[in-house]
Amino acid sequence: MDKQRQFDRDLEELKKKLIRMAALTETMIDKTIGELVSRDERLAEKVPEYEEELNRLQIEIDDQALTLLATQCPVATDLRFIVAATKINGELERIGDLVINITENVHVLAQHPPLKPLIDIPRMADLARQMVRDSLDAFIRGDALQAQSVIMADDQVDALKDQVLRELLTYMIADPHAIERSLALILISRHLERIGDHATNIAEDVIYMTQGRDVRHPKTPKKRPPEMET
Amino acid sequence: MDKQRQFDRDLEELKKKLIRMAALTETMIDKTIGELVSRDERLAEKVPEYEEELNRLQIEIDDQALTLLATQCPVATDLRFIVAATKINGELERIGDLVINITENVHVLAQHPPLKPLIDIPRMADLARQMVRDSLDAFIRGDALQAQSVIMADDQVDALKDQVLRELLTYMIADPHAIERSLALILISRHLERIGDHATNIAEDVIYMTQGRDVRHPKTPKKRPPEMET
Repeated sequence: MDKQRQFDRDLEELKKKLIRMAALTETMIDKTIGELVSRDERLAEKVPEYEEELNRLQIEIDDQALTLLATQCPVATDLRFIVAATKINGELERIGDLVINITENVHVLAQHPPLKPLIDIPRMADLARQMVRDSLDAFIRGDALQAQSVIMADDQVDALKDQVLRELLTYMIADPHAIERSLALILISRHLERIGDHATNIAEDVIYMTQGRDVRHPKTPKKRPPEMET
Repeated sequence: MDKQRQFDRDLEELKKKLIRMAALTETMIDKTIGELVSRDERLAEKVPEYEEELNRLQIEIDDQALTLLATQCPVATDLRFIVAATKINGELERIGDLVINITENVHVLAQHPPLKPLIDIPRMADLARQMVRDSLDAFIRGDALQAQSVIMADDQVDALKDQVLRELLTYMIADPHAIERSLALILISRHLERIGDHATNIAEDVIYMTQGRDVRHPKTPKKRPPEMET
């Protein structure tokens, strides 16, 4: 009985650490895109610290998960939960890496006058952030339906990515002075799209975990709009 | 004794499936970059089939790993090996996705005359392919030193990515007609860089697995040249 209570507490701690990781990535996205839009370079100054905390948490989760697997020999739902935790921590850590990539592009853009008012990129960031939050929420609650909604939201992020590309191509062709800034914005939109992909990976892990079957590559794949990977 | 033999056979099968996944990704990279260079569109025609096989193998590996964890309750090296397998299959599957992204850019480029002789991108592809092979080899042999060499090779891929960007920026600024093709080539180089990142992730998992400690985020991080994320 005591042993069971300890095991439950350990699972609870794994959950808390994953929630903390997700909250960190959300804050990182928020601050970085906030800095991009406002051009206030103090906004994202703590982002590298957050990334270090993400890295630490990733390792702690792996260590705890391995210990639980070795000492408790869990089965069924608990086993799936722990294995999912060791996959999801990696997704969250890479979202942190992507935000760091975005900050580098933001710093390049800060050295030039603004190219245009930014609308689609902040929308992409909001969507991607919400996807991260919802995918973690679905994981914690074991909610496959919510996970499915995250997978659907990814289509919107992809559509915005294509729109950003088309618009900025026009800017580049019209004015060589716009090329460097347009390219930086295109790369930011690519990084945000990849954040959406990681949230989608989390959602797919949740569905696998909750349903005991794999929906990651169904026989009739989810219809996506054709990519415009120019 | 018989049970042990069956367990060993199961581990062997996991290994074989991961080796098959790695071989598929290598072939996919090879054929796709071959098509980019030669402009012979039959070269990469089987790439989507290979990607489907990757997806199937990823699921099979997860299922087998969960079964082994639940029924055998492995510890120590075996436990670490199995958990690593459930992470590495995801890395390989995403390498497949990235090659599919590259094929889309290759199709765009096929509709235009060649922009320039391609040198750095095929070199990036060779490096990335070798990194995938070496990281899997390190995993199978439990060779942390070889894994370390994969992590070092990633710097070369990153340096080439920066070089590709700088060169193609010049093309774009000089001639608006070069913009679309240059951008497609830049995106291909980004996808190749990400393939290198996935191989690096595999190598980091190998080191974690073999040494029983985490080197993924050491206190003195590996020196990287400053990113030129324009």
